[in-house]
Amino acid sequence: MDKDLLINLLKSVADGKTCVADAVEKLDHMAYEDITYAHIDHHRSLRKGFPEVIFGEGKTAEQIVGIMEKMQRQENIILVTRIDQEKADVVLSQFPEAVYHTDARMVVMELNKIITRGRGPILIISAGTSDIPVAKEAYLTARAMGNTVDTIFDVGVSGIHRLLDHHDAIAQANVLIVVAGMEGALPSVVAGMVDRPVIAVPTSVGYGVNLGGMTALFAMLNSCSSNVAVVNIDNGFGAGYVASSINRD
Amino acid sequence: MDKDLLINLLKSVADGKTCVADAVEKLDHMAYEDITYAHIDHHRSLRKGFPEVIFGEGKTAEQIVGIMEKMQRQENIILVTRIDQEKADVVLSQFPEAVYHTDARMVVMELNKIITRGRGPILIISAGTSDIPVAKEAYLTARAMGNTVDTIFDVGVSGIHRLLDHHDAIAQANVLIVVAGMEGALPSVVAGMVDRPVIAVPTSVGYGVNLGGMTALFAMLNSCSSNVAVVNIDNGFGAGYVASSINRD
Amino acid sequence: MDKDLLINLLKSVADGKTCVADAVEKLDHMAYEDITYAHIDHHRSLRKGFPEVIFGEGKTAEQIVGIMEKMQRQENIILVTRIDQEKADVVLSQFPEAVYHTDARMVVMELNKIITRGRGPILIISAGTSDIPVAKEAYLTARAMGNTVDTIFDVGVSGIHRLLDHHDAIAQANVLIVVAGMEGALPSVVAGMVDRPVIAVPTSVGYGVNLGGMTALFAMLNSCSSNVAVVNIDNGFGAGYVASSINRD
Amino acid sequence: MDKDLLINLLKSVADGKTCVADAVEKLDHMAYEDITYAHIDHHRSLRKGFPEVIFGEGKTAEQIVGIMEKMQRQENIILVTRIDQEKADVVLSQFPEAVYHTDARMVVMELNKIITRGRGPILIISAGTSDIPVAKEAYLTARAMGNTVDTIFDVGVSGIHRLLDHHDAIAQANVLIVVAGMEGALPSVVAGMVDRPVIAVPTSVGYGVNLGGMTALFAMLNSCSSNVAVVNIDNGFGAGYVASSINRD
Amino acid sequence: MDKDLLINLLKSVADGKTCVADAVEKLDHMAYEDITYAHIDHHRSLRKGFPEVIFGEGKTAEQIVGIMEKMQRQENIILVTRIDQEKADVVLSQFPEAVYHTDARMVVMELNKIITRGRGPILIISAGTSDIPVAKEAYLTARAMGNTVDTIFDVGVSGIHRLLDHHDAIAQANVLIVVAGMEGALPSVVAGMVDRPVIAVPTSVGYGVNLGGMTALFAMLNSCSSNVAVVNIDNGFGAGYVASSINRD
Amino acid sequence: MDKDLLINLLKSVADGKTCVADAVEKLDHMAYEDITYAHIDHHRSLRKGFPEVIFGEGKTAEQIVGIMEKMQRQENIILVTRIDQEKADVVLSQFPEAVYHTDARMVVMELNKIITRGRGPILIISAGTSDIPVAKEAYLTARAMGNTVDTIFDVGVSGIHRLLDHHDAIAQANVLIVVAGMEGALPSVVAGMVDRPVIAVPTSVGYGVNLGGMTALFAMLNSCSSNVAVVNIDNGFGAGYVASSINRD
Amino acid sequence: MDKDLLINLLKSVADGKTCVADAVEKLDHMAYEDITYAHIDHHRSLRKGFPEVIFGEGKTAEQIVGIMEKMQRQENIILVTRIDQEKADVVLSQFPEAVYHTDARMVVMELNKIITRGRGPILIISAGTSDIPVAKEAYLTARAMGNTVDTIFDVGVSGIHRLLDHHDAIAQANVLIVVAGMEGALPSVVAGMVDRPVIAVPTSVGYGVNLGGMTALFAMLNSCSSNVAVVNIDNGFGAGYVASSINRD
Amino acid sequence: MDKDLLINLLKSVADGKTCVADAVEKLDHMAYEDITYAHIDHHRSLRKGFPEVIFGEGKTAEQIVGIMEKMQRQENIILVTRIDQEKADVVLSQFPEAVYHTDARMVVMELNKIITRGRGPILIISAGTSDIPVAKEAYLTARAMGNTVDTIFDVGVSGIHRLLDHHDAIAQANVLIVVAGMEGALPSVVAGMVDRPVIAVPTSVGYGVNLGGMTALFAMLNSCSSNVAVVNIDNGFGAGYVASSINRD
Repeated sequence: MDKDLLINLLKSVADGKTCVADAVEKLDHMAYEDITYAHIDHHRSLRKGFPEVIFGEGKTAEQIVGIMEKMQRQENIILVTRIDQEKADVVLSQFPEAVYHTDARMVVMELNKIITRGRGPILIISAGTSDIPVAKEAYLTARAMGNTVDTIFDVGVSGIHRLLDHHDAIAQANVLIVVAGMEGALPSVVAGMVDRPVIAVPTSVGYGVNLGGMTALFAMLNSCSSNVAVVNIDNGFGAGYVASSINRD
Repeated sequence: MDKDLLINLLKSVADGKTCVADAVEKLDHMAYEDITYAHIDHHRSLRKGFPEVIFGEGKTAEQIVGIMEKMQRQENIILVTRIDQEKADVVLSQFPEAVYHTDARMVVMELNKIITRGRGPILIISAGTSDIPVAKEAYLTARAMGNTVDTIFDVGVSGIHRLLDHHDAIAQANVLIVVAGMEGALPSVVAGMVDRPVIAVPTSVGYGVNLGGMTALFAMLNSCSSNVAVVNIDNGFGAGYVASSINRD
Repeated sequence: MDKDLLINLLKSVADGKTCVADAVEKLDHMAYEDITYAHIDHHRSLRKGFPEVIFGEGKTAEQIVGIMEKMQRQENIILVTRIDQEKADVVLSQFPEAVYHTDARMVVMELNKIITRGRGPILIISAGTSDIPVAKEAYLTARAMGNTVDTIFDVGVSGIHRLLDHHDAIAQANVLIVVAGMEGALPSVVAGMVDRPVIAVPTSVGYGVNLGGMTALFAMLNSCSSNVAVVNIDNGFGAGYVASSINRD
Repeated sequence: MDKDLLINLLKSVADGKTCVADAVEKLDHMAYEDITYAHIDHHRSLRKGFPEVIFGEGKTAEQIVGIMEKMQRQENIILVTRIDQEKADVVLSQFPEAVYHTDARMVVMELNKIITRGRGPILIISAGTSDIPVAKEAYLTARAMGNTVDTIFDVGVSGIHRLLDHHDAIAQANVLIVVAGMEGALPSVVAGMVDRPVIAVPTSVGYGVNLGGMTALFAMLNSCSSNVAVVNIDNGFGAGYVASSINRD
Repeated sequence: MDKDLLINLLKSVADGKTCVADAVEKLDHMAYEDITYAHIDHHRSLRKGFPEVIFGEGKTAEQIVGIMEKMQRQENIILVTRIDQEKADVVLSQFPEAVYHTDARMVVMELNKIITRGRGPILIISAGTSDIPVAKEAYLTARAMGNTVDTIFDVGVSGIHRLLDHHDAIAQANVLIVVAGMEGALPSVVAGMVDRPVIAVPTSVGYGVNLGGMTALFAMLNSCSSNVAVVNIDNGFGAGYVASSINRD
Repeated sequence: MDKDLLINLLKSVADGKTCVADAVEKLDHMAYEDITYAHIDHHRSLRKGFPEVIFGEGKTAEQIVGIMEKMQRQENIILVTRIDQEKADVVLSQFPEAVYHTDARMVVMELNKIITRGRGPILIISAGTSDIPVAKEAYLTARAMGNTVDTIFDVGVSGIHRLLDHHDAIAQANVLIVVAGMEGALPSVVAGMVDRPVIAVPTSVGYGVNLGGMTALFAMLNSCSSNVAVVNIDNGFGAGYVASSINRD
Repeated sequence: MDKDLLINLLKSVADGKTCVADAVEKLDHMAYEDITYAHIDHHRSLRKGFPEVIFGEGKTAEQIVGIMEKMQRQENIILVTRIDQEKADVVLSQFPEAVYHTDARMVVMELNKIITRGRGPILIISAGTSDIPVAKEAYLTARAMGNTVDTIFDVGVSGIHRLLDHHDAIAQANVLIVVAGMEGALPSVVAGMVDRPVIAVPTSVGYGVNLGGMTALFAMLNSCSSNVAVVNIDNGFGAGYVASSINRD
Repeated sequence: MDKDLLINLLKSVADGKTCVADAVEKLDHMAYEDITYAHIDHHRSLRKGFPEVIFGEGKTAEQIVGIMEKMQRQENIILVTRIDQEKADVVLSQFPEAVYHTDARMVVMELNKIITRGRGPILIISAGTSDIPVAKEAYLTARAMGNTVDTIFDVGVSGIHRLLDHHDAIAQANVLIVVAGMEGALPSVVAGMVDRPVIAVPTSVGYGVNLGGMTALFAMLNSCSSNVAVVNIDNGFGAGYVASSINRD
């Protein structure tokens, strides 16, 4: 349940515009709802400032739709991550106002307009063209959470001048998300240029001993720059989320 | 080179209190100094807001002393991490004002008093008594970087009531550092309680399939709470550093 | 061969209702039957209280049907695990009384009604919606072995209040099966609340460094709660089986 | 806090033998005690039927003694696991009634006589002579928790007749703990002989691709016998604990 | 080039039945033939007593046919391993006398009748029904190399009586091949019963921490029975080959 | 931008054949071009002597075509690696002069004739027929970079005479690329025969504990011959590239 | 119990030289003896042709001496493997006729002269000087089991001519043991030269990605020569044992 | 045997200065010498341009001295790598002209002055002070092989300006050796700046998920710069050797 919605409801009761019985009914499912295959955590919006996000992998399209039906009554925005085209088609046939982002494999449904806030811009940098889908997932998440988000794509360390040319955008960011596969060196170089926190996102891009992204992950955890923290492989969503929590006023 | 020191020097030149020749000499080594076995990055204080930190492992006591001698002319504070008792004894015999913290295996030398700043308190929570040395390294680092730091030790998830009793301190923290070995579950539970960023630090505490901390690390990277980012195993220093960069005004 | 069937046969001989020659014929294949591609262990029901369970993976539909034909003469119940829809269709066309459970990928054929026994309820708790198929396999197995089984789904540690609300059901269970993927933290928290044995089941749900379930497995083996024992990744069947052996009178 | 101690205290208050003020003082630290480096979970005895056990690894001798001093006021028995000879000497110099078991690296301090209970005997079987220390840790734990415990050592699968000769003891056990290193095959064979639960304990005994016990662990998790659940490598303590929770009346 | 063919050719020259020019032409390609994508090692039959075996994986059907065309002029038998149905169809359309074994994924083409030799029977034992394809590959290889081969399938260690009942066949074998997936315990038990060499073959049968057969492999390499040597995962061919080299007169 | 093209342009300006305005337009995109999903590094030809190579994996056909359109204005040759048939069809429909090599999964588009240079021949040796695709990728790369390249395929160490017969070609090579899967032994043997540098390329050919090529990789890194350096698994492109950089005059 | 000793005893009874009572006493402990910390498998000599071998690692010197005291009454030879100097000193002080081999870390006690038998010579080849200790363990084991054993040390593949010069000894061996660390290539080359079985022994010699011998092990399991079977890392004993079982008449 | 020495000897015979008998004696051990524990490959200097290098690990001081005694008669230079202080003391007591380099753990014995040759300078760059020992091993090896060698230490990617300032030295090198631990990013950045070959050396410097250098190794193998080839972890020797083979005229 969104905090603003809750405040408005309570004000409305105070003003006598909503009778107590109606308010009770609306608040009834506030903590969580048990729909057998899911305990929907409606309280999360209040506790954490953003509603539960639906992890699409391993859920049927029907389960996703079922959870969305319960959530839409109480939330301003609904995100579904890691959802393939086929399931997304089912979801969009039920919720035409939802949008599916193919590269990020993500459904975004804005029930109310997102209000921009945050201490400064979040900048997302990716090392290669193949890393863009993960960077996009971070971008969509951070934007959905109300941040101003900028992006620079394909500026890997093998041509360091491409990166250095973007020095100004890098210096102005309040939080940086750096996405890279292969040897995962980019976060170290970027973090060495700034004093702001860098969230590093390893991707599974590469082959052989990239080990499905483990090499980039381990490289980032071993960064010789100290203002770096790391999220799981290909976890653009998590990077956008934690960057947003850092950027919150 | 500390920014305040630099500003004071330039003001002093402007005021005619320092002659240009003396200022030139002082600024000469500003970018970095090459002492054969090290390129000391004096520019780092300006660029990143905190001087280079000496990683003690794999350096001889003589190398550490040599680097400290160069740094003390330009910095307000010097940290040496991962330094054992034997090397620390050599260091302290040269720098009696330095302090060695046995459990955190860290030397801290405050050349000028640390000025407290930051947006709010940083809270460090550790799962078990054996995790305290890593938590202490995070504590000393965050404090040296000018933050207010609080700690709660030994509140693992097998007795969840111990954690819940500290709810107020948890809710008031601006950034949280959660240190845990074994199954590494504590960051997920703590992060589920707050909307602020949580820096998770896996430790090598445990045996068998703790895999020297890999299990806790992987568990934290797979956290079902999204406001979590992770640093390397036993990297209390990195956690303190990145938390400080988040907490900076 | 089911123990009750054996006792009835022997009583029937004692009572003169069955002649010795008929009894010999019936008992002939009691120890095991060699049908080239399988040594069916008919003795297992007597020795272990439950017949051999058919592991469907890597067997052809024909082999599964062949084994079931031999078993149905001597057993009360037949289970086939890890059987996909295509093979199940073949099996059900031969044995219309069998039931296929799609999510658990399991065939259950009750030849006689299952008699409920056991010291108390077995409670199955799962962390996420995506973990339900594994939880269902545990559920079907434990129920087939004659236990009262309850379930609570989707109560992961990122919203701990959802779990705490089910405290009563947790406290009343005689054995608990806790199913979780990702960081695998749930068994530690649940086990910290009770003095009964907890069987932890890691699932392959997650991505990146979940390592196909290895992270959850290792986390569970490192549990800081001591009343936890673990089975293989996605092994809901094994969890149901061992929980049942614990719950047996 | 032991449940019996609590009941006696309350009866004593009811009988007027203890005044309320004294009872309050005694109960004051009941939930847990925060002694900076540890939150001692006194409530655990009530909640889980056995007090917190001190994990000796990574704690100083002074920390262990400090925790024991607080615990001895409220508990019937104190266990310290994974404690080396040197630390144990310090502990025993403070608590002369404590006993150190060299092979199991465990301190046992019985403050009151252990009352034997449990549904039947727990049987501990080990594969080789080198596995005995781990088996002993399981033995001491299960005995400390009030069980009747029997042992059979050095009956590995390369001479299967040695195992089969102990068939009677195996058949009579209510719970079995099977300890093995190297290929870890023994639990499968033993579990195939009984219908009771088997707790398998892999040990780090072996070399090369025993991988510090990982091979035995994985083998046990892949057991073709289904009444097997597994604990961490060398975790004799955990095996004894979970077996005891199974055996509890 | 088969040794007998070579001897006959030379005898024929000695007897004047074959002129030197014809013999030269026939012997011309004896050492090896370079057909761009392969150096066919015709000398191998002389050096090692069996012709080169074609590893089908990663070769096109055309390459396989091309190699077979060159080999059939000089060899008595041709084996193709790890060849799928589709490629096999192409091969059989060119060589109608070749036989495709679906479960073993192997093509066998006997150009001359195989002469049985060897010091005694080779016995192949497999743990489960799902292990049969690997066992079959070993069987076909050992038989193609001129051995008497017997098989016992599905006698895993969870029902040890099934194995012990085959004691006579086990005792009479000159070499034993033991095939097992999951925990890979069977070779240890079988090897403990005999003084003959046991070739252990791990299979990828299982799931979770079977790790694609690595667990069975490592378990077999750690066997507490010493008359065991091991081949690669699912390498039935290698087991049949090395067993045959042991069994050679 | 190719160096020769640049020189010609500048000469043309000097000669008055090209006006300054035209030259400026041509040089405008020289450093790199930002086309949203890629920063094309046109400067690379000048800096590194060869243009950026397009890594096809993870890019859409449209992105590949888009990058090629920008590159063809400035380069002599364009390579696309790791591109499958389907994407290649799209590319070739746009650039009919490009050639797709199916086995090497590579597109080569020669915009100007390649000029052969280099200190001597590069020799590519592969261990088995299944390793040829990787060897071909190395061959096409080294040839595209202007080298004379020879190949010897299918000369694995199990028939060492096949290798020794090619001694002359081996002795005359200036750089050697040795491609092998399975146990990866060939580079050690070849490197022991020469004093020139050997670039070893592990392939993923094999099964079981070849671990997708990791075993060959690790074996090559452990080579007892010291004139060996290694590239990533299946990285024929990298081997051709680095060999070419060594062979450059 | 040695078979010859048993036959002699029975003959002696038949001849009236030994009375029945004495024979009974002697045979009493024949199957195995339970001395608490060990079940000594006296039956092994009859069943397997060689007595149980004592694995020294993880046993105390006292346990080793205790087992040897029981064994010496019934066996012709006693081997202790993986025993360090310190424990060996204790053993030799009790059994002065025993010999300690420092490099192989092995105690050999011949109670009766070893009778040489076997079908032909066993040849042990090692790749480097550092591999000699493992080769020696194989040598001592095979010799103790009654074989003629030859050795060739330090003939690694980086100088292949050293190996080829020993062609005659290689061709004459009935079984070959090939010991190698680092890239583990030697067994493939040797096995390619002969038609006899090769037992490959990986050693932990090397550093970095030799992974404690895993790389050599995996390389050997992937050998492109098919007459190779493998034992555990550094397991010279196992190699000697299985080679002897192959060589037995 | 050094090529120059051989030529001089033959010239001396041609000139009648050396009689044939003396020459024969000198050449007698040319191919290799078998001193039981080693086959010294004297032919290597002729075949590979540099004598065999003694790998000190796993050899006794006596074995090292014994091999050096044989080599000094025929070679110009002798290197011993990975030799600790204790063994080095024994070696130096026998060969006072030898020099021990403590940080590189290497003995260098120049029997004749090294003649400098090679196409250009070899440049060794290391990321951190702790990487210097490995860089030194590379330096000593390359210098011993007759190259001009320069070094730049401690220029990691977290302060990229330190590296860029050395641009000239980097541009002039004919071969570059780049040594780095932790995330191993430095070779990618350096290789992006040049068109010459880069030999990357991962070190074991770091902790946690540096995995003893595996992370740096894998990162380097995944380099997005293509003119990079890699050697084993901490293998400064190999890097110096292969760089020298590249730099040879």
